Amino acid sequence: MKIAVLGGTGKFGGGLATRLAEAGHEVVVGSRKAEKAEEVAADYTEKLDGAEVKGASNAEAVESTDVAVLAVPPDYAAETARAVLDGYDGVVVTPVVSMSRVEGDFVYTPPDAGSSAEEIRAALDDGTPLAGAFHNLAAGKLADLSFEIDADVAVFGDDEAKETASELAEDVGARPLDVGGFGVAPQVESLTPLLINVGTKNGIKDAGVRFV
Amino acid sequence: MKIAVLGGTGKFGGGLATRLAEAGHEVVVGSRKAEKAEEVAADYTEKLDGAEVKGASNAEAVESTDVAVLAVPPDYAAETARAVLDGYDGVVVTPVVSMSRVEGDFVYTPPDAGSSAEEIRAALDDGTPLAGAFHNLAAGKLADLSFEIDADVAVFGDDEAKETASELAEDVGARPLDVGGFGVAPQVESLTPLLINVGTKNGIKDAGVRFV
Repeated sequence: MKIAVLGGTGKFGGGLATRLAEAGHEVVVGSRKAEKAEEVAADYTEKLDGAEVKGASNAEAVESTDVAVLAVPPDYAAETARAVLDGYDGVVVTPVVSMSRVEGDFVYTPPDAGSSAEEIRAALDDGTPLAGAFHNLAAGKLADLSFEIDADVAVFGDDEAKETASELAEDVGARPLDVGGFGVAPQVESLTPLLINVGTKNGIKDAGVRFV
Repeated sequence: MKIAVLGGTGKFGGGLATRLAEAGHEVVVGSRKAEKAEEVAADYTEKLDGAEVKGASNAEAVESTDVAVLAVPPDYAAETARAVLDGYDGVVVTPVVSMSRVEGDFVYTPPDAGSSAEEIRAALDDGTPLAGAFHNLAAGKLADLSFEIDADVAVFGDDEAKETASELAEDVGARPLDVGGFGVAPQVESLTPLLINVGTKNGIKDAGVRFV
């Protein structure tokens, strides 16, 4: 598939982009500045054995792609969706989580829409298939290509988009699990701060989750 | 330890009570009706090899215990805490989760306090140590003593209570993981509906969680 990873210059987006390229997908990382995207894309390509990652401005990155992954910070996610994905005819995937730190713990602080997924959904055109996925994979593990991802990814949202997101999750070495529609978005998104707390308080580096 | 499992006549409370008795604790299951508690306690005792579970009214069950586990339905949890744990000088543990079903999916529907734990905390005397634990263990697995619990239990709340709850989690065969203070309560409680969705949609019976 041809995949745009918007916000692909960050650690999480970069890890996802390189792993998807490694799995044989045609990947373009997007950034607000084309130059920065091209720079990091060259770095990613160097890490890969033969595969290539391209870089472009967010708007150019999504052109003629099948999937756009919104790997952008929560405060910019809906804005980016509105600006870049107006008229988009591919599938959109959100790994976005909004959290903050309260008394030493990471806590889930969703936007007014109830979840980042719902906020993004409202920003997209009606009918654009959207799925949530990849929230439960730590950036550190994704970015280290020598690390075998052996964790689960909870996938929710529109059926068509869930299928696509599940394929991509398998491609990075994770086990995708369908967990429902958009009503479950807060539960999936809030796993991320929980995983960070689990990790930091119990010495589990880049904690992931397995459902057993 | 001497432990009261309030609401111990349900599947979850019953499973927890029998496993704690099996581990060597002195366990009393409480119910609103003493007679019902005595009846099920006799059933639990029959399932155990030598150990005994006692039954009593909730008010009598907590007398001179070290720990009270509030294994009651979410709508009655705060009410039970107020009615039964006024002046209690042991540690209180809440596994309470408030959820409902929306379009086929289980979703987390916390009370106005933000979480069941915070609602219960407000109902207890100031200074009564409270921890959240056991939310992530399925009743079906707990109740089947032949099943080896090999899952994690996220523990949050007051430090003293977290220590006690963690010991009890180990005693039932789980791995306790400290995940923070009361601010993380919604994240831990919302794991339960997520686990149910994971289980029903992916054929994982009585799904539990492992942080990896």
